[in-house]
Amino acid sequence: MGAPTDARRLLDRCRALVRPALREAVGRTHPWVGEMAAYSFGWCEVGGAPADASGGKGVRQALAVLGAEASGAPGCVAVPGAVAVELVHAFSLLHDDIMDGDTARRRRPTVWKAYGTGPAVLAGDALFALAVETLAVAPAGPAAVRLLSGALRDLVRGQADDLLFATRPWSGPERMRPREYRAMAEHKTGALLGCAAALGALLGGAPPATVSALDRAGRHLGIAFQVVDDLLGIWGDPAVTGKPVYGDLRERKKTFPVLAALDSPASARLSALLESATDPGAAAALIEESGGRSAGLAEARRQVSAAEAALAEVPLEAGAAADLRSLLDFLVRRDL
Amino acid sequence: MGAPTDARRLLDRCRALVRPALREAVGRTHPWVGEMAAYSFGWCEVGGAPADASGGKGVRQALAVLGAEASGAPGCVAVPGAVAVELVHAFSLLHDDIMDGDTARRRRPTVWKAYGTGPAVLAGDALFALAVETLAVAPAGPAAVRLLSGALRDLVRGQADDLLFATRPWSGPERMRPREYRAMAEHKTGALLGCAAALGALLGGAPPATVSALDRAGRHLGIAFQVVDDLLGIWGDPAVTGKPVYGDLRERKKTFPVLAALDSPASARLSALLESATDPGAAAALIEESGGRSAGLAEARRQVSAAEAALAEVPLEAGAAADLRSLLDFLVRRDL
Repeated sequence: MGAPTDARRLLDRCRALVRPALREAVGRTHPWVGEMAAYSFGWCEVGGAPADASGGKGVRQALAVLGAEASGAPGCVAVPGAVAVELVHAFSLLHDDIMDGDTARRRRPTVWKAYGTGPAVLAGDALFALAVETLAVAPAGPAAVRLLSGALRDLVRGQADDLLFATRPWSGPERMRPREYRAMAEHKTGALLGCAAALGALLGGAPPATVSALDRAGRHLGIAFQVVDDLLGIWGDPAVTGKPVYGDLRERKKTFPVLAALDSPASARLSALLESATDPGAAAALIEESGGRSAGLAEARRQVSAAEAALAEVPLEAGAAADLRSLLDFLVRRDL
Repeated sequence: MGAPTDARRLLDRCRALVRPALREAVGRTHPWVGEMAAYSFGWCEVGGAPADASGGKGVRQALAVLGAEASGAPGCVAVPGAVAVELVHAFSLLHDDIMDGDTARRRRPTVWKAYGTGPAVLAGDALFALAVETLAVAPAGPAAVRLLSGALRDLVRGQADDLLFATRPWSGPERMRPREYRAMAEHKTGALLGCAAALGALLGGAPPATVSALDRAGRHLGIAFQVVDDLLGIWGDPAVTGKPVYGDLRERKKTFPVLAALDSPASARLSALLESATDPGAAAALIEESGGRSAGLAEARRQVSAAEAALAEVPLEAGAAADLRSLLDFLVRRDL
């Protein structure tokens, strides 16, 4: 299977296409704030010395570029959209890390940990402002800004729900349902992925039906991606994922496999195990036994199929559509 | 002199005109986040019980409304712009209070103090997103979003400089100059005031020269406003300002009167007094003796004149122009 290599080559190509404009955008802000932004993209160390650390896979910029190409336009027309979604993604990671108290990301200290909470809040704001500015001066400005602002509203909604879910009980009528998880994941992760592909199509001159189909495909992809992340968080190889073993269970996260397992007869026993969080290995085994793992796999497959169905609804340029599918596969079949 | 009463009446009229749309905008976000936003506007208490606390004077919404009226349009056309600038102002106060560690605003706990830092970061992000969305769907969308995003860039720049100024020495070649203060105040305060008036004019259909003149007037007003704030922070009546006596001096803030006084022969003595911050009364007296107070008053007057000159450059509807001038007077002649 050549798919992973193809997908990586695809991500590299899109990153190379977008990076000059992304660097230019970051260069427009205050130099101190720009350093924090550059650090978060892996371009420099604290203090400004050049670095070549991981800045993430760049999925959103690739979706924007492929959205334009799938609409028959050259990928470069998507660059303002690609820059905007990468800036928004970086902004949301920066602020989410503050809200979640996460101290490390991509094996480096998070921005708030390295520079302080106040500066990290400001750096996030700066990235947000640059994203809006980038689209406001781009062609197709008003419609593009409307797409982005819709995604931003969903992003806030998803993050709010994610924070509130932590306070919900494991069982009883107030417990969280997989349905609520899906809405949260669509808002928190899917909205920006959908916006990325849709922005690319919009900037590529695609008709509204194509823009909307790509948006929906991205939203399904987002849910699938989040569920796969949850599965890897419990059963993935820590050497590959870079995450601590059973980290999500230790942090009592209400992930999809957990919620699905809580709908089984083992609910009471599992609630007690999850709440104490002292034996995450036993919890993982019980979640698997109660069907949480298979429910998660089924959910991911269902969402990937829905994404593929959305792509099949509209006429797309064949090569780019194949690229979109191989990216989709790569993102949700990671090491499962 | 009837000016203060006129200005208060003016602010009340604009607040009443804008409030329904502002409430509608806040109602579009996640309910939990919306409660934090409503709390910051003084509309509710923690927990959501209705309140009628001060949400600030509402200068920015008034400038937007008057910007439209001065362009010969009805004030209501400025409402989307007025909502956007009030949302951005609320966002910036929310995040600035986190960065500055301020625990009280308008005699109530700040949002981060009342709800926690993470939630307050998110509430600020939500207000920011709502502001962009409000303008993106308004008529004159792209130009309006461009105006706002320019102001946002300046806002970040001003806040970054303000945070960095705290680390600069009182004396020597690395010390801060009044010129740098002016740029910081223009960015931090003036840009959004200018944007408010300019957005009103833009939405009112004014020609570019008028939009630009109102923008510049707002920027000068912002510097004047900030300098007056500094003067009141040292010599104002705490019963009127609601600020602790000599709070700025105790916090070693590099305010305009301080910077101006540091350019005098008393610089060395004053530096020592300011650094120790143990006798702010003596520092205040020395600042006044060294001409810091009169330099501040002169600077405020100069900026007000520049604002008035900008307004005089372009044809404006006479009644609204008079209202703009009375608002300007009210804001910078407060209790001096």
